Amino acid sequence: MKAEKTQMDAAKQGVVTPEMAAVAASEYLSPEFIRDGVAAGTIVIPANVNHTSLKPMGIGRALRTKINSNIGNSQTSSCPKNEFEKLDVSLKYGADTIMDLSTRGDLALFRKELIKLSPIPVGTVPVYEIAARAGAGKFDRDTILEVVEDQAKQGVDYMTIHAGLLAKHIPAALKRKLGIVSRGGALIAAWIGDHKMENPFYEAFDDILKICRDYEVTLSLGDGLRPGCIADASDEAQFGELDVIGELVQRCRAANVQAMVEGPGHVPFNQIEMNMKREQKVCGDAPFYILGPVVTDCAPGYDHMVAAMGGLAGAYWGAAMLCYVTPKEHLGLPDTEDVRRGVVAFKIAAHAADVALGRPHAQERDDAISDARADFDWERQFSFALDPDRAREYRRAALQESHCAEDAASGKYCTMCGPDFCSVRLSNKLKEMNK
Amino acid sequence: MKAEKTQMDAAKQGVVTPEMAAVAASEYLSPEFIRDGVAAGTIVIPANVNHTSLKPMGIGRALRTKINSNIGNSQTSSCPKNEFEKLDVSLKYGADTIMDLSTRGDLALFRKELIKLSPIPVGTVPVYEIAARAGAGKFDRDTILEVVEDQAKQGVDYMTIHAGLLAKHIPAALKRKLGIVSRGGALIAAWIGDHKMENPFYEAFDDILKICRDYEVTLSLGDGLRPGCIADASDEAQFGELDVIGELVQRCRAANVQAMVEGPGHVPFNQIEMNMKREQKVCGDAPFYILGPVVTDCAPGYDHMVAAMGGLAGAYWGAAMLCYVTPKEHLGLPDTEDVRRGVVAFKIAAHAADVALGRPHAQERDDAISDARADFDWERQFSFALDPDRAREYRRAALQESHCAEDAASGKYCTMCGPDFCSVRLSNKLKEMNK
Repeated sequence: MKAEKTQMDAAKQGVVTPEMAAVAASEYLSPEFIRDGVAAGTIVIPANVNHTSLKPMGIGRALRTKINSNIGNSQTSSCPKNEFEKLDVSLKYGADTIMDLSTRGDLALFRKELIKLSPIPVGTVPVYEIAARAGAGKFDRDTILEVVEDQAKQGVDYMTIHAGLLAKHIPAALKRKLGIVSRGGALIAAWIGDHKMENPFYEAFDDILKICRDYEVTLSLGDGLRPGCIADASDEAQFGELDVIGELVQRCRAANVQAMVEGPGHVPFNQIEMNMKREQKVCGDAPFYILGPVVTDCAPGYDHMVAAMGGLAGAYWGAAMLCYVTPKEHLGLPDTEDVRRGVVAFKIAAHAADVALGRPHAQERDDAISDARADFDWERQFSFALDPDRAREYRRAALQESHCAEDAASGKYCTMCGPDFCSVRLSNKLKEMNK
Repeated sequence: MKAEKTQMDAAKQGVVTPEMAAVAASEYLSPEFIRDGVAAGTIVIPANVNHTSLKPMGIGRALRTKINSNIGNSQTSSCPKNEFEKLDVSLKYGADTIMDLSTRGDLALFRKELIKLSPIPVGTVPVYEIAARAGAGKFDRDTILEVVEDQAKQGVDYMTIHAGLLAKHIPAALKRKLGIVSRGGALIAAWIGDHKMENPFYEAFDDILKICRDYEVTLSLGDGLRPGCIADASDEAQFGELDVIGELVQRCRAANVQAMVEGPGHVPFNQIEMNMKREQKVCGDAPFYILGPVVTDCAPGYDHMVAAMGGLAGAYWGAAMLCYVTPKEHLGLPDTEDVRRGVVAFKIAAHAADVALGRPHAQERDDAISDARADFDWERQFSFALDPDRAREYRRAALQESHCAEDAASGKYCTMCGPDFCSVRLSNKLKEMNK
């Protein structure tokens, strides 16, 4: 099935689609506001016409901050069953979109099943399948369009296309400490080096747009030259590519294809605001979808946390969606527990940003937990937690280790301070006295 | 032994003490800069004359961001051996100071041993021992001065004294969602409620200052009314107490007693900068020692991460020291592994702030890791990591699970992307070609 008209066609004609109405309801905003954002390109609703199990959601700076979880089979680790478990965990802990980064196995079959199972938008990076199908250095315009169309037909909601990385940017990128760290970016740069030709995704961009229009695929304009360490952040290669991406955003909008922009990566804390503002300016405020950013390179094993710190700041200063990072980043592929930890870390960042930005009803959840704390209602508190199971697990462990476990289990203080030093207990008593 | 003159006496007389010289060397700053900061009160060097095993360190907005780890026996959990293990772990992962929050057991004996074993400044909250010695509601001016002097004689480097919380602030605090959540603050507010008298720490402040002068104890002016949830942040009670603390800072400086100021707590991200600037203004830029702050209340079980996010922002906007929070915060007392996770989370926050603020040599560590990454030198990379053991553990696990483990063990790619999709490998190859 093909789209008769895209979300952007409709929005520009003043029509509120069912998808826009659904997004408006979930964001506590008016349908007209969503429609106008889609028309302007500052809000995207990735919703392939063939992804029939999808519950529509919107991405944009004016909306609740979204997070993405990555799964997929790779050359070093692959078991579709495990990957579907990761989907379940991602959904359970609140991922808003899921990307299939598979590079191995029956890519089409896995993706078909994933799209069927996923109520959230599914994203892909077609260059992985392109390279897998044709061989890393051997793909051409035809392979590109073939794979993009195959995936679009299947129901992929958004695709990362690295069309902004041009031959002229590569020398600056190679001067860096860590060169090119985007997998897609490195594959394309190697292709350009081998063929002495311009980036084939850039050359085929109009044809890619046509396919995206046909199936309502949102383009996620990939940052193939994102910095791989803080020393490489905000450099000539990164911003050179961003300028081209800004032009591509305009071409997407002219074709009524929705577009978001991918961003770094590794950025020190003091450069995050500038990076967000620059994208807004250069790319006409297209939704910015950032990876972290990691704010220090010193903590392998903790990069979910390091990247969530940068993610909170990024979202506060305007990023619309955060791509999660797991504790295994830079070291290996995440297992299911790592996926959980990555998703929760980024839900924390996204929610903290939403509270700071005063998004409608965001702080109500914090307030509900705080009320439950004052009441010593542990189960009510945990029911509002971003990871209720973890909170219950820690409370149980603390009770078991406590000297006064039976007393504590009665609930009127926590095992941190004990009964005589429980500030909430003292404070509640004082409140009673002052009534 | 008593101090002949305090650090501040010396600084004001233009003298560079050995402690100032040591701090200058470790901060890559001039001894005169440190001396002038100590004279002005914007830098403190907590160094009790009786803490002979101490390696002096400085705390101030112009210096490297410091972090504090808490240990101590409590009513619900106490085993001195475990607590000394937590000291070891805190030292191993880079805590800059350690606070003994014990409320149970032989407090004096434990503290004596801790001071002997600790090369970093030891802090305490005397009201815990005061309440334990006299009974929670029963202490008076004499008990206060007795305990403060006993601890000062033993060699405690800094003490949290909640002298800013006055009777007039309590009604506003009790109107909050979570009332008073500081243990010390709640004990004192309850005392004020029982006795219908002013805060005895405020009343005895000049005598406390005299003891601090005698032994060179730095005062850490406690925020007994810090908010316990983001809904309570930046309210009348919090800022009313801060105003009194600002006056107390001036009294400390007039007495040549070093002082820092403790801060929140729970603060949404958008209020952190304002909170840091307000303290600087109200308290004459005395070093701000903050607890987190926690930026959302929704993540019990992850509060080390939530608080480290706020800590990074706080340090970036001017906090001098961050008190760590562990994953068990709000749920129970941390075990040794929780202490490790808390310390590492806050080292990440502190280091990321130092990099963002351009502290001398801070980024060199990031750069060394990035160079090792480009070289696929895993062991060199891990040697610079904030938690090398964790990084090694994850790499080992990833290799074991990998399909191409033997190949990967050769080191020329990581187990995330595998050999054919390794961006660093592709990028390095391209660099070679372009030479």
